Amino acid sequence: MSGRIPWPVPEPHLPSGVHPALAAATRAATDAFRAAREAYDRAQLAEKVQVGADGTPTMRLDILVDTAIAEVVNAHRINLLSEELGHIDNGSAVTLVTDPVDGTANAASGVPLSAFAGVIAVDGVPTEALTSWLDTGRCWHTVAGRPSAYRTNGRTELDGAAVSLLRPQAHIADAWWRVATRAARIRILSTSCLEAVLVAEGSTDAFADAGSDTHRIVDLAAAMVTVPAAGGAVIDVHGRPLEIDPDLTRRWSGVVAATPRLAEELAETIRGTEDR
Amino acid sequence: MSGRIPWPVPEPHLPSGVHPALAAATRAATDAFRAAREAYDRAQLAEKVQVGADGTPTMRLDILVDTAIAEVVNAHRINLLSEELGHIDNGSAVTLVTDPVDGTANAASGVPLSAFAGVIAVDGVPTEALTSWLDTGRCWHTVAGRPSAYRTNGRTELDGAAVSLLRPQAHIADAWWRVATRAARIRILSTSCLEAVLVAEGSTDAFADAGSDTHRIVDLAAAMVTVPAAGGAVIDVHGRPLEIDPDLTRRWSGVVAATPRLAEELAETIRGTEDR
Repeated sequence: MSGRIPWPVPEPHLPSGVHPALAAATRAATDAFRAAREAYDRAQLAEKVQVGADGTPTMRLDILVDTAIAEVVNAHRINLLSEELGHIDNGSAVTLVTDPVDGTANAASGVPLSAFAGVIAVDGVPTEALTSWLDTGRCWHTVAGRPSAYRTNGRTELDGAAVSLLRPQAHIADAWWRVATRAARIRILSTSCLEAVLVAEGSTDAFADAGSDTHRIVDLAAAMVTVPAAGGAVIDVHGRPLEIDPDLTRRWSGVVAATPRLAEELAETIRGTEDR
Repeated sequence: MSGRIPWPVPEPHLPSGVHPALAAATRAATDAFRAAREAYDRAQLAEKVQVGADGTPTMRLDILVDTAIAEVVNAHRINLLSEELGHIDNGSAVTLVTDPVDGTANAASGVPLSAFAGVIAVDGVPTEALTSWLDTGRCWHTVAGRPSAYRTNGRTELDGAAVSLLRPQAHIADAWWRVATRAARIRILSTSCLEAVLVAEGSTDAFADAGSDTHRIVDLAAAMVTVPAAGGAVIDVHGRPLEIDPDLTRRWSGVVAATPRLAEELAETIRGTEDR
């Protein structure tokens, strides 16, 4: 993995009506992402330079983008909850919850599937979400309680479904394979936030962590606003409540699906408790 | 899966110096792809309307794009070898070998990972390849025997590599899992042609069909020009020669890798003959 990534990073196609801090954070993330790709090669972008607030090693690319977002948050005098920098409390009722670069491994290597995802939470309640596909500028925006521009495809059954999964790992091989056997199509795009909006807009049926407890709340927060508003569901495989919590060491196995019924069937299949 | 796909289809960013028939075919494929998405919803795009020349059911989207390409081929008085329409012999020494919509299932459902891939072959020898990512207009162009604009990342070892695979299937589960266990990162993007150019440009290490013999020559022809010119290799798992052959019922298990050594190691791992 070497050399700079030559492809351009376009401006985000922000819809109107986005919360000013969320819009500014999206622009700042995009600018920082572009500057990082121009300044560093693939190996430098992927270099693990510190340990993030979530307890996992942080790539240089993540730090650069997260730092740019922190500046926006401070200028807007709201709080931040982000994968790398953790919780910054500016004494506001409003918090920006963000995965600055979702799909960091894709982004650092040049696979053009990575996103900025941001959620505005007021007193811990998510009110608005924006996901921006950094490689194309394509944006998905949802405000809780208002009609969504997206609609899932309404699928209710796992047999024959198109399901995105986190990558297979040895310790969850059985669960992973149970899902793969029942689905007609399996994708691994390695970008949870984009996989979630593809469910919301009806382009795929579901996305799941097959029980590896890899998901942090920042990976799921945007989906928690976007997908239910489009008719779908976001749950945890083991039924743990999905909560915006400054403790970023908490983990979930998220299931994002076109309908609550499909989400439950996927969770049961992953747990191995399905009634068949 | 329902509703129209609302996202725009941009013009292809064609580099200069592309063979006129290949450039015209790329534009025609893009225009037909855009028109099909505007005229039909997801279910209609995916409807299986006939059996293609490769012996598998053909989606409406494939037919619409392939028909547009056939018109270009006839106007340029060259031959065609395409997934759906098969071999059209216009008595020329030049043949356009094409997968009109690589990643058709992605394209028809709205997952933004699908490509037009075309190869100019003269007396059966591939001389030039172009892959165009239909959702973004991003193009990769290589002329055999001339310096390539792309360079693989040079990786030689499977352990810890980033490998794209065709989706898992029960009858090749062991081979699929052997690769997944040794690689550090597995992706399934469901678009062979884009996965191949990501190897050529150094964004990922390899792409393989783990022995399911799914690949047709139209899936691999562009990679056969693009990847070796960038320092990589394209082979068959079982060592069968990759040949441009009008018999589209022939199948291969293609391995596309950053180096010949990594390609061989992947093929051995898939065959289960690796020396470990």
